[in-house]
Amino acid sequence: MHNHLVAALDIGGTKIAGALVDRDGALVARARRPTPARESGERVMEAVAGVLAELAASPRWPEVTAVGVGSAGPVDAAEGTVSPVNVPGWRGFPLVERVAGATGGLPVTLVGDGVAITAAEHWLGAARGHDDALCMVVSTGVGGGLVLGGALHPGPSGNAGHIGHISVELDGEACPCGSRGCVERIASGPNIARRALECGWRPGPDGDASAAGVAAAARAGDPVALASFERAGQALAAGIAATATLVEIDIAVIGGGVAGAGEALFAPLRTALRRYATLSFVRRLTVVPAVMGNDAGLVGAAAAAFAARTGGSVLSAG
Amino acid sequence: MHNHLVAALDIGGTKIAGALVDRDGALVARARRPTPARESGERVMEAVAGVLAELAASPRWPEVTAVGVGSAGPVDAAEGTVSPVNVPGWRGFPLVERVAGATGGLPVTLVGDGVAITAAEHWLGAARGHDDALCMVVSTGVGGGLVLGGALHPGPSGNAGHIGHISVELDGEACPCGSRGCVERIASGPNIARRALECGWRPGPDGDASAAGVAAAARAGDPVALASFERAGQALAAGIAATATLVEIDIAVIGGGVAGAGEALFAPLRTALRRYATLSFVRRLTVVPAVMGNDAGLVGAAAAAFAARTGGSVLSAG
Repeated sequence: MHNHLVAALDIGGTKIAGALVDRDGALVARARRPTPARESGERVMEAVAGVLAELAASPRWPEVTAVGVGSAGPVDAAEGTVSPVNVPGWRGFPLVERVAGATGGLPVTLVGDGVAITAAEHWLGAARGHDDALCMVVSTGVGGGLVLGGALHPGPSGNAGHIGHISVELDGEACPCGSRGCVERIASGPNIARRALECGWRPGPDGDASAAGVAAAARAGDPVALASFERAGQALAAGIAATATLVEIDIAVIGGGVAGAGEALFAPLRTALRRYATLSFVRRLTVVPAVMGNDAGLVGAAAAAFAARTGGSVLSAG
Repeated sequence: MHNHLVAALDIGGTKIAGALVDRDGALVARARRPTPARESGERVMEAVAGVLAELAASPRWPEVTAVGVGSAGPVDAAEGTVSPVNVPGWRGFPLVERVAGATGGLPVTLVGDGVAITAAEHWLGAARGHDDALCMVVSTGVGGGLVLGGALHPGPSGNAGHIGHISVELDGEACPCGSRGCVERIASGPNIARRALECGWRPGPDGDASAAGVAAAARAGDPVALASFERAGQALAAGIAATATLVEIDIAVIGGGVAGAGEALFAPLRTALRRYATLSFVRRLTVVPAVMGNDAGLVGAAAAAFAARTGGSVLSAG
């Protein structure tokens, strides 16, 4: 097993990335296609098959013993199906079966994309050495995953750690998911920008009206921009504190585009965390930026596949 | 191991209960003392030692191979200490060491009281056969515990599942824990009664101004009483939905005095749950009343001790 490779897929609404990954987490071959997200489910599958075919052309493909797939959610790991919100052609799509078919029957491990980035940060990143961790992506949406007792906790369906859709405001604004006051509804990039614009903030000369533009304004001291990030930090803090109170984590790792705002986000988040994480057993919780970057989804999908092949045990690097 | 017994302790702010418990969950001897909660830590320990001495007088004491302790929290299972909010004389009190000393060096397993009742419901109660469950007590406070992947999840410190102190209202009323809008601050018995009184509800001829009085009024159709339970149900639903979204549970079991209100609580709770539990993987979540009654803390403390002696594996009944 030690010298074997895993084929990893990271499937999102804009791109399908693939790689061959070794036991050290190194990517020894890569492939990538845009996701034809508005086309039929079969067209999307053709793109996946194309990525796999490119990988299969690698001279190292014969070493591949398993496939790990991280997909935009929701996924159903028990059924082997996916229904990504941003890929309407896939509803209950039998991705595991189709990927197995496209790879000559290799074993396939499916997890949600939040679980995948968590596996990556735990294996080789900011959560390494932590037995109980929450890893999050704060971007267009807010996703996440959990490490509990030293092992990835995907949950029976592979979606656990879905912190973006817990409600921290009972009577808050309606969320597209159907609930109210979800963390994502307050803290995602588009919502940070929307709130700033609604409160009178206007983009600078570069015209950047995204959360990155709001972050630049916040760094320059704009009070409306600061307030929008403060509110996002508050929602994230309440969600992180809830997670720590429920399952006892000692570290929260935050990646994704909005985390790129740096202290504009992390400073108010840490302040708010002291307010919401009050019980003795959650007070030592720390919040740090993610380190795995753009390959986190691929590395994490590989980690999940390696872990599945070794009875779910924790991977150690190197 | 199979025929051996466990000595179980259930330590709360008003009473200290003890029992010898067999592998079928039967209580074969009992003892009980009031908790001298306002006295010194040593006085409280004397009461614990008194309960253990009574149990040690049982002819079956020689069969005892371990001690399980469920204590009001917070506890620190890693350190073996307890700091129950309602027992000020115990702050970082080395309960595990003291109980071991009082029992001739038996191995002692410590968990929070919410974790203990969860162990009981999973072993022999309403969560039996469920691999992923949240069990709660809604009473003077709101506590809970988790079963994940078929096993009790006490967390490193023994406090996991502390759902009463997750915030479901970012800007909500201040909670004695220091946070805001905690589930307990909205849904505990005293808060149900307080909210009804503040909104103009008055007790009936029996003078019962507790949550039980409000429940009776709700059953008789009093709109203010109904509204107070509805709000409690909403907070509980948001907390339960958050838990399901974070760790994937398929059942929530609710016990405690406020659960005794029956449909006055469960009907609005189930309605609200449909609003907050929206993602595909949490929609099948069911909410049911607890069945283990007053002995849940003792049976659960025993279950935790048995599980610790068998490598944390799941107990099966009978």
